Amino acid sequence: MVNPLLAPELRELLAEKNYPELCEFCESNHPAQVAEFLSALTPQEIWEILSHLSPSLRGEIFSRLDEEVQLEMIRTLGREPMGKLLSEMPPDDRVDLVKRLSKKQREAIIPAMAQAEREDLRRLIAYPEGTAGSVMTSEYAVLTPELTVEKAIAKLRREAPDKETIYYSYVVDANQKLIGFVSLKDLILAPPGARVGDIMHEDVIYARAYDDQEEVARMIQKYDLLAIPVVDENNRLVGIITHDDAMDILQQEQQEDVEKLMAISGSHEVGAYMKLSTWDHFKSRIPWILGLAILGFVSGYIVQSYESILIQVAILASFMPMLADTGGNAGSQSATLVIRALALKEISTRDALKILVKEFKVAFLMAIVLALVAYFRVLLFIGHSSTAGTISPLKVGIAVAVALAIQVISSTLIGAFLPLIASSLRFDPAVVASPMLTTVVDITGLFIFFSVAKLMLGL
Amino acid sequence: MVNPLLAPELRELLAEKNYPELCEFCESNHPAQVAEFLSALTPQEIWEILSHLSPSLRGEIFSRLDEEVQLEMIRTLGREPMGKLLSEMPPDDRVDLVKRLSKKQREAIIPAMAQAEREDLRRLIAYPEGTAGSVMTSEYAVLTPELTVEKAIAKLRREAPDKETIYYSYVVDANQKLIGFVSLKDLILAPPGARVGDIMHEDVIYARAYDDQEEVARMIQKYDLLAIPVVDENNRLVGIITHDDAMDILQQEQQEDVEKLMAISGSHEVGAYMKLSTWDHFKSRIPWILGLAILGFVSGYIVQSYESILIQVAILASFMPMLADTGGNAGSQSATLVIRALALKEISTRDALKILVKEFKVAFLMAIVLALVAYFRVLLFIGHSSTAGTISPLKVGIAVAVALAIQVISSTLIGAFLPLIASSLRFDPAVVASPMLTTVVDITGLFIFFSVAKLMLGL
Repeated sequence: MVNPLLAPELRELLAEKNYPELCEFCESNHPAQVAEFLSALTPQEIWEILSHLSPSLRGEIFSRLDEEVQLEMIRTLGREPMGKLLSEMPPDDRVDLVKRLSKKQREAIIPAMAQAEREDLRRLIAYPEGTAGSVMTSEYAVLTPELTVEKAIAKLRREAPDKETIYYSYVVDANQKLIGFVSLKDLILAPPGARVGDIMHEDVIYARAYDDQEEVARMIQKYDLLAIPVVDENNRLVGIITHDDAMDILQQEQQEDVEKLMAISGSHEVGAYMKLSTWDHFKSRIPWILGLAILGFVSGYIVQSYESILIQVAILASFMPMLADTGGNAGSQSATLVIRALALKEISTRDALKILVKEFKVAFLMAIVLALVAYFRVLLFIGHSSTAGTISPLKVGIAVAVALAIQVISSTLIGAFLPLIASSLRFDPAVVASPMLTTVVDITGLFIFFSVAKLMLGL
Repeated sequence: MVNPLLAPELRELLAEKNYPELCEFCESNHPAQVAEFLSALTPQEIWEILSHLSPSLRGEIFSRLDEEVQLEMIRTLGREPMGKLLSEMPPDDRVDLVKRLSKKQREAIIPAMAQAEREDLRRLIAYPEGTAGSVMTSEYAVLTPELTVEKAIAKLRREAPDKETIYYSYVVDANQKLIGFVSLKDLILAPPGARVGDIMHEDVIYARAYDDQEEVARMIQKYDLLAIPVVDENNRLVGIITHDDAMDILQQEQQEDVEKLMAISGSHEVGAYMKLSTWDHFKSRIPWILGLAILGFVSGYIVQSYESILIQVAILASFMPMLADTGGNAGSQSATLVIRALALKEISTRDALKILVKEFKVAFLMAIVLALVAYFRVLLFIGHSSTAGTISPLKVGIAVAVALAIQVISSTLIGAFLPLIASSLRFDPAVVASPMLTTVVDITGLFIFFSVAKLMLGL
């Protein structure tokens, strides 16, 4: 986000070299707000301001700049200041940024970083995208069980500026194995002489580094945690994921689900609409549109093969759109509900039969209502048709009603069934939703429609 | 969620009246886990266990039981225990539960509550659904500016058990006006003799009680807050909203958006799929299905009015489904992107022209690709049609390609335009998405198709 409101004032302060005032501005506002205001300036101007701040505030503000601005700064500023800035970023944001750099940029900047941060970066960046390890930070507070509460608080006080949170501390043994956790609240409430090992909670809710990031975020949500510790295969503490990152993960995952529902592939950077070029938009949208259009030729083929029926009773063509749309809507409804229930782990693929029975019942009720409406609609309007004369309107009405009823029931079941199949094959259920489903039930719907018409109208 | 795993063990402990063991179980596990295990028991059994716990833990566990279990307990247990339980719940969860009670149940239970909680409930329940006031809690920590850091920490230590969080404290003046905030981290880092008024942050990020809950949740997300203070029209502090509630709000709002996209109305309780009866499912799904089916008759009417063309060139009918679907997909894509960008405040209705220009460019590129594919498809398959003989396949191919191109461009623009219109009329942009849109572009698509065919084929 760019907020050009204060840009002239900031530039004036820069021209006057009034750094105390600039620092005051950066310190008294929230880093997210400061980042918004700074985004309106040039990379050189931003760096001039940032260079007068404390390292941790500088890293905090830089990590909240738009990725585009960050990349622009990396392109235009030297490797020394950028290596420094990178060293000062929160470790999880640093990993995200470095992943966007070209190989050449990485090779230039990483050696300019401080050694500890360089090693930390190497360690974190090794975790595959989508895992808990890829989103965790290494700036967590650690205590040992033999510390007294008083000494623990003193330790946290010393380390506070370098930690993502000091409200949760994790207790590890001599091998770095996670054995408990204490909150700052626990420490404040405990007698100063008590030992951390005696007051810590031993049943720690934790994640493993290769767990799916969405599942870990859901644990943070379920248990209302401020942070969750992440351990490696030997139960050694390797990082934490904080509540604010969990919120961003859930938002991103839900956004991806919506985009799958709506047939958009590709980049999911939040806030990218205006920034993406026409060509990028085109590339992310055309695969689905084209693929589904080609799949749509199958429905065309079905219609074509029943051409002789259409010529005899041309009025039938006028029910095709309604039939297809209604099937698509009914299927989308059941698919959405099943996909959501699967995502929230409310149901699993083992409940498939129960789900299909339930969907059948719901679809049956809807089919009755729709069949009645369609029947009366046909009777009402068929008089205007020039070709209906050869076939009794009553018969056409019944055929349309029956076809619509079968279509609603079959589409609803297909909508519930496809996500279950996808899930049991370990695909994301969301991929089979809306657009793909619409095309599938179009094909089945046309087939149902013409078969019913052929049979009932004796064509 | 119900977890029947431990139910036999818990029942055995109950039969033995082994309350120390039961208390130990409830205290050493997370309240959310305890609630899951208790859900498998009867209301009487749950109450027998809860009655041996401390009030705050009892309230915490009860508030995490499924709403269904809570309501069942209210129905079967007397008003005395339930009034007590209600008094012990976190205030925001209490409001949610009381809102689900019948008038009769409310009149029975509310008088049995402790007076302070009763008044708190009356105050909170008055805020309309969807506002910040309706989701805030009144259990926040308050400090006054003249307190020393030492005394402030002592106060927080005393009050900790009754507060939702002590990590953020809000500073108010003599009139309860919000004048600043300090985190527990600030207090721990400050010298014990400093005054709260001197170390507090004066630029507090806050919300107003009648602000939209989603916007407030987005502020918590943007600024990575643990909680946000809520003030009334006189800037008096009246509550806080915590990060975990913000996460739930964002999830619920996104779920509602997805359901609007997928044409499902009604209840959005998380985890409701299996619990909702067939009849409830029917009621929440039929309005959209029926409404859209009736709207679909309009497309039927358009087809009917071009019946004479269809009889002459029956092959045209076989392109109708592909044309309609492609329009629906293209429209859904642009609508989804615009709706998201609006929701994230990345764009506003003032950018309408810029957005439409961008969408036009993207659609134009897609139209070229699709038109080419459609043209060759027609040439390839038209030989099999029994009626194509009268019209040159080349001409039909060009007509279909042109119609498809116009359809993709118009659908994309309609998909981008409808949410912008809805937003400028202060409706939720999401209501105009997918199913409604599909039906609209079906109608425009058929009209485009037959008009182009009529013109280009000279029918």
